[in-house]
Amino acid sequence: MSISGADIETGACNLARSRRDAPIALTMGDPSGIGPEITLKAWQALHETDHAFVALADPGLLQRRAEAMNLSVPIAVASEENVRDFTRKTFRNALPVLPLRNSVNGEAGVSHAKDAPATIESIERAVELVAKGLASGVATNPITKDALYRTGFTHPGHTEFLAELSERYFGVKAQSVMMLWCEELAVVPVTIHIPLQRVLNELTPELIAETARITARDLQQKFGVANPRLAVSGLNPHAGENGSMGTEDRDIIAPAIATLRAEGIDARGPLPADTMFHAAARKTYDAAICMYHDQALIPIKTIAFDEGVNVTLGLPFVRTSPDHGTAYDIAGNGIARPDSLIASLRLARRLAVAMQDGAP
Amino acid sequence: MSISGADIETGACNLARSRRDAPIALTMGDPSGIGPEITLKAWQALHETDHAFVALADPGLLQRRAEAMNLSVPIAVASEENVRDFTRKTFRNALPVLPLRNSVNGEAGVSHAKDAPATIESIERAVELVAKGLASGVATNPITKDALYRTGFTHPGHTEFLAELSERYFGVKAQSVMMLWCEELAVVPVTIHIPLQRVLNELTPELIAETARITARDLQQKFGVANPRLAVSGLNPHAGENGSMGTEDRDIIAPAIATLRAEGIDARGPLPADTMFHAAARKTYDAAICMYHDQALIPIKTIAFDEGVNVTLGLPFVRTSPDHGTAYDIAGNGIARPDSLIASLRLARRLAVAMQDGAP
Repeated sequence: MSISGADIETGACNLARSRRDAPIALTMGDPSGIGPEITLKAWQALHETDHAFVALADPGLLQRRAEAMNLSVPIAVASEENVRDFTRKTFRNALPVLPLRNSVNGEAGVSHAKDAPATIESIERAVELVAKGLASGVATNPITKDALYRTGFTHPGHTEFLAELSERYFGVKAQSVMMLWCEELAVVPVTIHIPLQRVLNELTPELIAETARITARDLQQKFGVANPRLAVSGLNPHAGENGSMGTEDRDIIAPAIATLRAEGIDARGPLPADTMFHAAARKTYDAAICMYHDQALIPIKTIAFDEGVNVTLGLPFVRTSPDHGTAYDIAGNGIARPDSLIASLRLARRLAVAMQDGAP
Repeated sequence: MSISGADIETGACNLARSRRDAPIALTMGDPSGIGPEITLKAWQALHETDHAFVALADPGLLQRRAEAMNLSVPIAVASEENVRDFTRKTFRNALPVLPLRNSVNGEAGVSHAKDAPATIESIERAVELVAKGLASGVATNPITKDALYRTGFTHPGHTEFLAELSERYFGVKAQSVMMLWCEELAVVPVTIHIPLQRVLNELTPELIAETARITARDLQQKFGVANPRLAVSGLNPHAGENGSMGTEDRDIIAPAIATLRAEGIDARGPLPADTMFHAAARKTYDAAICMYHDQALIPIKTIAFDEGVNVTLGLPFVRTSPDHGTAYDIAGNGIARPDSLIASLRLARRLAVAMQDGAP
C-alpha cells in the first residue's frame, strides 16, 4: 500500500503531538554520586508542574535513598511499553522510574566498577526512548568517567558517547557543541578542556565558524530563535586593539566572523571579552561564542552559579545536564542542591516543545 | 632648638588630622574628553556629602561646559595657599577649582596637543598637594596617551607616571599594581595589557608573589583590612587538575602561594577561575589575584560595569580613577555617566581616611 504525502504529514503531526506529551528521560548517572538525591529533590520541586520526567534508574536504590534522607517521594515503576502515558498520569503523585536491566549497587560516595553497565545502559535507553518517540528529550545526571573507563568505556566523555548514540539510534552523524545556559546568558566555548597554551594553537577560523554555525542552527531549531544573534569574543585584552596586543583577533577570529556573515549568520565581533557580559550587553545577543573555557565559564558562573545548565548542541535530540559533577564528597548526606538539575529538566522540556513545534 | 619626641608626635597627629580634613585632588584629565562633564556631574552627586574634592582644572572651561550642557554647577576658584580650608567651606555650594598655570583649549571630542602641558601639570600638582598635606589623595580623570606622546611624554601610561611622581615628591621608589574594585569584588591582574601568548612566558612565581605582597600590604594600609585574605586564580581550566590540563598552575602559581604563606600572607589557590567569583565565593576573600587581563576584568565588569574603580596599589598615596577612557565619541553631548568617577571619589576618600587613621 502506498502512502500519500497527506498521510505522511498527518503521521508526522501525530508523532509531533505525541512527542510533545512525552516526558523527559532522565538518566541515572553515577549511582554513587549525588544523582539519586537530586533526582528525588527535582521531582519534589517539579511534580506539580507539567515538567514531567521519567528516571531511567533503579527503583529500589531511589526508595532506599529517599528513606535514608527522609525525602517524601513515592516511587512508581514504569515499563517501556507504557512509559509515556504512565509518566503523564503518575508524575503528579509519584516519581516514575523505568528500571534498568543491569543491576545497581550504588553505595553513596564509593565508586563501583560493576555499576558501569547500568550507568551506560541508562544513557543508551534514554536516547532510544527519544528515537522511538516515547520521550521528548534527555537530561543526564553526572557520571564518573574513571569508573566507566575501568569497564572498557572508550569515549572521552558523556558528550562524545551521545554523538555515537545519535548515529546508532537516529542515523545522524553529529558534531556536538557545549553550551552553558542560564536565563540571562548563554555561552559556547570553542575550545574546552585543554591547557591555555594549546588554545593558541588549536583555534582556527574553521573551528570557530563551525562552532558558531551549530550554535546558530540549534538556537533556531531548539530554542525557537528565528534570527539568532551571536556575539563572538576576542582572545587578547581589548580584542587585541587592532593587532597591537596580539594578532589572533584580527587573523583568526575576524575571518571566521566574515565567513559567518557571508553565510547570513548574524555574528558580531571580535568583541573585548571583559565588556560583553554585563547586564545591558547580554541583552544584545542570544549566545556568546567564546575562545576558551574560563572566558566562557567565568561570566556565567559568576552570575548563575547554582542554576547553570549544560546543553549539548548539534545532536538530533534535546540533551541537557546539570553543570556540576558527581560530588562523591557529599553524596548521601542530604545537602546536595538540585537547582541545576531542576533548571536542566525545565530547559529540556522547553527545548523539546520548541523543537516539536517546528521552531522557529 | 631641639624637638622632643612628644613634639614630633603632636606634629604628626596634627598633620594626620589636617590630611583627614583635606580634600581629594581630582585631575583634569584630557579636557577634550568626558572629564569636564563627569567632574561637574560628580560634584552634583557628592556636594551634600563629606566627599569633598578640588578639581585641578581650568575654571573657564568647566563654566562653559556647565552652561553648554545646562548643568547647574557654580564654580569657585581656589588658590594653592587656601585650597584645603577653601574646599571644605565651599564644597557644599560650589565646585572648587584650582586653576592650572598652563592654558587649556579643550574642544570637546577633538584632541589638542597643546593641552598636553596642562594635562600633565594637573597630575603633577595633584600629587604635590598630597605630599604637602593639602590633599588627602588623588583621583584622576582619563587621559589620551597619544596626545601626550606627541609633546614628549615618555611614560607608558598614567600609572608609570605616578610612580615617577612618587619618587619626585615622596622620595619613594614605587612599584605600582592595578586593582579593579567594586563594593562586592576586588581583582588584581598579575599581567595586564599584553597578548595572551605572552602571559604564558611572563608569569613567574616572583611576579605573582610580588603582586600579591603589594596587594596584601595596601589592603592593610589603605583599606584597613587587618588580615587580608587573597584568592589566587589558576591559569588553566579547573586550575590544571593536578597538571593534567596544563602545568603552570602546579609549577608557577602553587610555588608563589607557598612563598606567600611562608611569609605569613593568607593566600589560597590556585583556584579554578570559573568558580571563584560567584556571590558566595566572593565573600571568602578580600582580593582575587588573577593571572591575566580578561580573567580579572570579566568578572568585575560583568557584575559592576558602571561602578568599577581602578585603584593603583603600591604608591605612597591614595590614587583612584574611573574604569573607562576619555570617550571622545560622546564628549560634550551630555550623556556621559559619572558613576565610575563618583565611585572613585568616594573610594579615594574612604582609603584616605583609613590610611590617615593608621589602618589597621
